[in-house]
Amino acid sequence: MQIASAHDRTAGAGAQTASPDGTAPHRVVIVGAGFGGLAAARALAGTTARVTLIDRTNHNLFQPLLYQVATAALGAEDIALPVRSAFRGAANVEVLMAELVGIDRARRLVRLQGAAPVGYDSLILATGSVSSWFGHDDWSARAPSLKSLADALSLRDRLLDAFERAEACTDAAEVRRLLTFVVVGAGPTGVELASSIAELAHKTLARDFRHIRPSEARIVLCDAGDAVLAAFPKRLSAYAGGRLRALGIELRLGAGVERMDEGGVVAGAERIEAACVFWAAGTEATPVARWLGVAAAGHGRQVEVSRDCSLPGDPAIFVVGDAMRLAGPGGRPLPGLGSVAKQQGAYVGHLIAGRLRGRAAPPAPFRYRDWGQLAIIGSNSAIADFGFVRLTGRLAWLVWSAVHLMLLVSVRNRAVVYVNWVWAWLTYGRGARIITGAPAGRAP
Amino acid sequence: MQIASAHDRTAGAGAQTASPDGTAPHRVVIVGAGFGGLAAARALAGTTARVTLIDRTNHNLFQPLLYQVATAALGAEDIALPVRSAFRGAANVEVLMAELVGIDRARRLVRLQGAAPVGYDSLILATGSVSSWFGHDDWSARAPSLKSLADALSLRDRLLDAFERAEACTDAAEVRRLLTFVVVGAGPTGVELASSIAELAHKTLARDFRHIRPSEARIVLCDAGDAVLAAFPKRLSAYAGGRLRALGIELRLGAGVERMDEGGVVAGAERIEAACVFWAAGTEATPVARWLGVAAAGHGRQVEVSRDCSLPGDPAIFVVGDAMRLAGPGGRPLPGLGSVAKQQGAYVGHLIAGRLRGRAAPPAPFRYRDWGQLAIIGSNSAIADFGFVRLTGRLAWLVWSAVHLMLLVSVRNRAVVYVNWVWAWLTYGRGARIITGAPAGRAP
Repeated sequence: MQIASAHDRTAGAGAQTASPDGTAPHRVVIVGAGFGGLAAARALAGTTARVTLIDRTNHNLFQPLLYQVATAALGAEDIALPVRSAFRGAANVEVLMAELVGIDRARRLVRLQGAAPVGYDSLILATGSVSSWFGHDDWSARAPSLKSLADALSLRDRLLDAFERAEACTDAAEVRRLLTFVVVGAGPTGVELASSIAELAHKTLARDFRHIRPSEARIVLCDAGDAVLAAFPKRLSAYAGGRLRALGIELRLGAGVERMDEGGVVAGAERIEAACVFWAAGTEATPVARWLGVAAAGHGRQVEVSRDCSLPGDPAIFVVGDAMRLAGPGGRPLPGLGSVAKQQGAYVGHLIAGRLRGRAAPPAPFRYRDWGQLAIIGSNSAIADFGFVRLTGRLAWLVWSAVHLMLLVSVRNRAVVYVNWVWAWLTYGRGARIITGAPAGRAP
Repeated sequence: MQIASAHDRTAGAGAQTASPDGTAPHRVVIVGAGFGGLAAARALAGTTARVTLIDRTNHNLFQPLLYQVATAALGAEDIALPVRSAFRGAANVEVLMAELVGIDRARRLVRLQGAAPVGYDSLILATGSVSSWFGHDDWSARAPSLKSLADALSLRDRLLDAFERAEACTDAAEVRRLLTFVVVGAGPTGVELASSIAELAHKTLARDFRHIRPSEARIVLCDAGDAVLAAFPKRLSAYAGGRLRALGIELRLGAGVERMDEGGVVAGAERIEAACVFWAAGTEATPVARWLGVAAAGHGRQVEVSRDCSLPGDPAIFVVGDAMRLAGPGGRPLPGLGSVAKQQGAYVGHLIAGRLRGRAAPPAPFRYRDWGQLAIIGSNSAIADFGFVRLTGRLAWLVWSAVHLMLLVSVRNRAVVYVNWVWAWLTYGRGARIITGAPAGRAP
């Protein structure tokens, strides 16, 4: 078996990153180019470390706007950043498109599909989370979730195709079924998706058909719990519920999905005939615990980490973001938010960089700086909880828009998203109403 | 079998389009929402005709910029227009997403996959052309062509993935093969594709890899003929050849592709090891002749039409654009250009509209207004032949850019393409460098 930091292959590469004292450079492997991995690599760019950033895709994805790609408001390219171009100027960072399949802790290397194994001195696992169907993996094809660009494009195709098929259909019951959209899970993703589908149907598409009335499309949002956006304070959550109803969305709270078949779903005691069912009910950590050979913690299957985000007993390995579990202020586990991942990635990157500069003191433990949370409900309303102040309505929506534009990584993405948003806001038009799948791939 | 103009299904729909004299409205079916079909439907919007515009996709595609989607300069949504939104305000036009599978001329109806048959009084076939591998249909998977958005996205994935795999590869010969791109066919599409791949490799990606040098990627452009862009005057064609060589493209003229396998291609007498082979060597008409039960004309398999674009002997049927054959000025057949399709579509639409208004005189025959032709070679050069003036270089390129921005159908597309172009022109960056295919779908 060939084991190499890929840097070794090219004569000269990495030479500029050799340590000043002539020892071999410290090899940092980062797996995952999401918020956490990107922040870690940025913190290590320009240091003496040799960094290998590995992701199974070639892009960093701005997940908070993925639902807008799925509902035809944005193009796939608008919210993705080619990882390579982000590290073009950082000679000590290399990017590898490959998939992690195992970790050999004894030999300190990661095994990959699509590339030779890569050895590490420090390993940062930032592989995030995957959708979880709570043991019903057979539901994943019937009720797809929204995690990748491929997911978003496939969801968009399904959504738009349902309207097209309804327009061509002469059976009233089937038309009704085609125009019923069930979203399972009333967390931020489910709420965003349901409200964006509602606006697509009731506004964008309202006048575009001759036989069906998209404005009569049913959007049903189910959740096993008794509130939407339950992570928010009660008053904000109740406000969001009211806004969703005002958008014409049917809320089914206390209604977990029990069964699912080609015709529709059973949520609580009710059967709903629906062609499109989308899953936003839960996630679990990527199998980091299995890769590391440690026990996973709780339902989320995360890995418990120490206060410096390292694996207890193995200071060479760090886990950041959705895949780790660490108590935050008040003793509750830190939430699965991009801001946690980003701060942890930067923290671990700087921690390693400090060690390489010879800092002897043990680092201060990771402290999550909570900037608050935001959730958007349609194109005019949002809720925001900044702790010291809570906002609802249009003001919260303006804050949401500004924050999300600012957080987009590249100037080009920012400009294009801005053009699209202004156009959509003025016209309710959505330029990305394009079914890109090959006609042969059309769902039966 | 159910036969209906879909309009019939909804009470009231179409009522406003009934003829003033109380007779049933004239049913016009247009198949294909490309340049020709769109122009025909626009000419008939607001008339007393009941128009059904059928396409197997849900969008009008601006084909001239498709190569920019394939080479990561633009997003798929930037060059596509949802057909429905274009006819939102035209109550007499309905849009149907379905695929034509047959025409019953005796009963005057089209058979569709995805919808019930639709009857017509006038039928406009604007189904365009498809790629042709000249009898080697088995080459289509190995050497895909560029006709649809799905093609462009799949081609982009292949292209970007080749660089990623080369970066992770340790076998020098395989790296060489992964970084060799063969484009077959030196017409406008082949030239655009080859020069855009060359700029992607030699400029955009130049500094993004650590082990491979994208600037050493080979781009080989083969053609069985002895000139590139052979439809242009000799001087312009020779200029284009020089520009292609200046971009580092290896021209192989008089080198038709003889064989193809997983390793590479044999062009002329030379074997070229290449992972990516793209086909731009030929097109033929969609099977309109077969649908109509008439003889196809020549290699292009088009249908010969009368001077009013109707089918000889059947004045209810018109064929426009790439699928028809009609002698132009000088007796040569009209070329397969978007401008021919657009002018014919508008001509036929107005012809039918005139008949509905009771115009008795036979229409003047179709006359193609030749605005000239343009071809772009990379991001700074083009050739333009307007008959009275011929341009090369940067001036032709400016004309090309202005004309193409202007021809984009929607304001939103225009704005987004403009942002992308300015950004790319300033930085050589291409924001659409995103592999959207699911990792599982990655080519082996």
